[in-house]
Amino acid sequence: MPARPRFTFGRTEDAVHPDTMRAALSEFIGTALFVFAGEGSVLSLEKLYRDTSTAGGLVMVAIAHALAFFVAVSIAFNTSGGHINPAVTFGALVGGRISVIRAIYYWVAQLLGAIVASLLLRLTTGGMRPLGFSLGSGIGEWHAVVLEIVLTFGLVYTVYATAIDPKRGHLGTIAPLAIGFIVGANILAGGPFDGASMNPARAFGPALVGWRWRSHWVYWLGPFVGAGLAGLIYEFLVIPTEAPHAHQPLAPEDY
Amino acid sequence: MPARPRFTFGRTEDAVHPDTMRAALSEFIGTALFVFAGEGSVLSLEKLYRDTSTAGGLVMVAIAHALAFFVAVSIAFNTSGGHINPAVTFGALVGGRISVIRAIYYWVAQLLGAIVASLLLRLTTGGMRPLGFSLGSGIGEWHAVVLEIVLTFGLVYTVYATAIDPKRGHLGTIAPLAIGFIVGANILAGGPFDGASMNPARAFGPALVGWRWRSHWVYWLGPFVGAGLAGLIYEFLVIPTEAPHAHQPLAPEDY
Amino acid sequence: MPARPRFTFGRTEDAVHPDTMRAALSEFIGTALFVFAGEGSVLSLEKLYRDTSTAGGLVMVAIAHALAFFVAVSIAFNTSGGHINPAVTFGALVGGRISVIRAIYYWVAQLLGAIVASLLLRLTTGGMRPLGFSLGSGIGEWHAVVLEIVLTFGLVYTVYATAIDPKRGHLGTIAPLAIGFIVGANILAGGPFDGASMNPARAFGPALVGWRWRSHWVYWLGPFVGAGLAGLIYEFLVIPTEAPHAHQPLAPEDY
Amino acid sequence: MPARPRFTFGRTEDAVHPDTMRAALSEFIGTALFVFAGEGSVLSLEKLYRDTSTAGGLVMVAIAHALAFFVAVSIAFNTSGGHINPAVTFGALVGGRISVIRAIYYWVAQLLGAIVASLLLRLTTGGMRPLGFSLGSGIGEWHAVVLEIVLTFGLVYTVYATAIDPKRGHLGTIAPLAIGFIVGANILAGGPFDGASMNPARAFGPALVGWRWRSHWVYWLGPFVGAGLAGLIYEFLVIPTEAPHAHQPLAPEDY
Repeated sequence: MPARPRFTFGRTEDAVHPDTMRAALSEFIGTALFVFAGEGSVLSLEKLYRDTSTAGGLVMVAIAHALAFFVAVSIAFNTSGGHINPAVTFGALVGGRISVIRAIYYWVAQLLGAIVASLLLRLTTGGMRPLGFSLGSGIGEWHAVVLEIVLTFGLVYTVYATAIDPKRGHLGTIAPLAIGFIVGANILAGGPFDGASMNPARAFGPALVGWRWRSHWVYWLGPFVGAGLAGLIYEFLVIPTEAPHAHQPLAPEDY
Repeated sequence: MPARPRFTFGRTEDAVHPDTMRAALSEFIGTALFVFAGEGSVLSLEKLYRDTSTAGGLVMVAIAHALAFFVAVSIAFNTSGGHINPAVTFGALVGGRISVIRAIYYWVAQLLGAIVASLLLRLTTGGMRPLGFSLGSGIGEWHAVVLEIVLTFGLVYTVYATAIDPKRGHLGTIAPLAIGFIVGANILAGGPFDGASMNPARAFGPALVGWRWRSHWVYWLGPFVGAGLAGLIYEFLVIPTEAPHAHQPLAPEDY
Repeated sequence: MPARPRFTFGRTEDAVHPDTMRAALSEFIGTALFVFAGEGSVLSLEKLYRDTSTAGGLVMVAIAHALAFFVAVSIAFNTSGGHINPAVTFGALVGGRISVIRAIYYWVAQLLGAIVASLLLRLTTGGMRPLGFSLGSGIGEWHAVVLEIVLTFGLVYTVYATAIDPKRGHLGTIAPLAIGFIVGANILAGGPFDGASMNPARAFGPALVGWRWRSHWVYWLGPFVGAGLAGLIYEFLVIPTEAPHAHQPLAPEDY
Repeated sequence: MPARPRFTFGRTEDAVHPDTMRAALSEFIGTALFVFAGEGSVLSLEKLYRDTSTAGGLVMVAIAHALAFFVAVSIAFNTSGGHINPAVTFGALVGGRISVIRAIYYWVAQLLGAIVASLLLRLTTGGMRPLGFSLGSGIGEWHAVVLEIVLTFGLVYTVYATAIDPKRGHLGTIAPLAIGFIVGANILAGGPFDGASMNPARAFGPALVGWRWRSHWVYWLGPFVGAGLAGLIYEFLVIPTEAPHAHQPLAPEDY
């Protein structure tokens, strides 16, 4: 087993290595695909209804995000690790799983992907203005910050447990499903309160192209704090330093 | 193959072993994540509608529970076995798959996780009072006890067949999906009758924080009886004592 | 590779072998779980609405069947092959994958499971009378027979391709998902026309307990014909007789 | 590792090789199953409502397509590669993953499958005329072409990343799920705008049997352009030419 990873700035040559460029390309395309389907489902609902406040509408948006995030993570999984979210990249950074240089590449790629997707949506929907996220009635900005912290904590903890933990074993096979589906579940829980973004790129692209900035800072602060907490807790409390055990959960010898 | 597991009290040192603490932490976080998304989806529906009795609303709540339970089981799978439910822990106990000491740690962690999630929901929703479970019109408490027995039997039988059975083979890879999805299916079947809890922690956290105790005992008795039956039947009737066969289902040589 | 399987009556000792009894028990419990959740979701919709004809209602019933059939197949997969359906057993029989004696055990277990589930539903719902299947307006019985043939052909072909074919490779890991999800998709396509049963046990239990026999023969004839066709076509046209190739789909050397 | 694949016409004997015939049969049956469930869900919604413009209706159609495409890809995966879509075949062709002769066989099989499915739908629904695809209000044909390009790019990129890339590793196990679910997500995003076909066979069968050809060319041009772009970008930019690394995503040594 390798030594516990440490926070590193990264070697300079990383920045121009073909693998780094390929990883950034994967993050760009994956994030574009996710934001296109995610924000697209919101516009699609608006197109059908001009009113998004029903259970059927929330199910529709949550399923679109769950499926699209699962796929986006999958298609980037072996190239970049499948972050598709600046907060996930931050969570990997605080746990020492990625260098600062690489994180910066990812962040730029993710934001560009979200912007390109939002522009393509504006074009293909005949000019609809992206909606992005806003607060539900009676929800204050600090309520929303805490909500984003809790929801993003769950997402990044899931990324660590299923895709990063060296003891993940066979669970790694279904990691992208778990990562996509916690996004769907959390949207069903948090959607009517603050939209349940958990992802600054998902919030930023539509905000820029639709030019809607009200409470936008909430969708950066909350996810980064939640992701940072999850990275620190998983990396330093949950991952054991001993040699890994057998991976057979619930088998008698585990107890 | 190891000898058939037996009911044990557990060695005293288990109680302070770092692995036990890590397992309890996993159960705590997993249960908090599950209850936050599950009860959160109920509050989310209340926020949208103030009326939860539609097919769309039931689908929304069932999907939230299915996805969140799948994810919660996944993230705790390799650390604690992924119980996320005091009834599942009880089912593992009666089959001799876990010691009494370890079970007590799990139960405390699960209940604490559910309470913390319910408190966080109250905070982030701007003060909504958790709803928890209640009986449908025309459903008596003993009807509900039997319903909880049947539904929880299905859940714990699924845990045994896909995650505990030494013959599970490749099925173990998708075990968390099966465990999460039976929760979703059972909610679609039992939701309008008694809420389909199958999980005393899921019922207890919102009951405490929302202070709603009517018929609460139903959601402890039913799940424990169903889980106990499933554990006994699977452990002593289904798991064979002979050496395991090849794991190729339906292949000619199996017949 | 073994010789192509042949239709056999089965050895007499099969009938009393513990493995056969365990397989029948698995089919019994799996079918009970599936019918409880499936028919339960129909009653649940009736309880909410007293009107099942909406898109949300159909989604609810289809998801319940998809998830529950996936789980039921999973929990019986390594013990009995996970048929959970007399038509699937018939499809395995015509392809020579199961003996006649074993098929009879499975059929009895599946029908008993469906009856027990229907009785438990009647008890736990406070006396609701199971609904089972009926024809949509303007649909004749022979339309429905053809529809059941087509839908069940798809289901049994999926069972062969993902769980029986010796060349299935890694696909076997997600076989129960494919088998469950084709049931869900087919219900969304066929639900409003004839209910999309594809499964005589699923139709028989509620028909008996709810005592509703109109057009019941449709739900036996259609599924058996569709399953028989799928078994014959897959076994004799699709499964190759040569040694299996590598299992890397779409890799260059496959072309 | 084999040399990078190249565009080839294919050897003449391919055309009569049993494997090619079996692959074409798989594509025929898989496409028929997919179109039957997909277009069937549209007719099913029409049967329930005579109005398809609600969130519940869109969820219903998207889930039917997601589940059915997942299953159709699964059942053909080991025989033909699981294309089930002339655009996917085209994407594989431009990347040099399939010969021209084989592609022609696939195209014919896919179109025949879609036609047979549409005829069976007309028969089993008591004569309903298939609907196929049409443009939403305010959406021009070139908007729709761009939308089909973007959506199909996402689909074919997903096929490459999860099922073709030699570095896909364990991801190959869930490739059919990712391929099916991106179809579902994209329908939720694009459904109200142009139906989100991404698949000329899916569009052609119902158009022929329902005799509805308005804007039909959109559903050929868009998907082929999107698929071609995805094949070229993945094959020549994302797949590395060096020897493959270890497949452990996010593990420290990957950075």
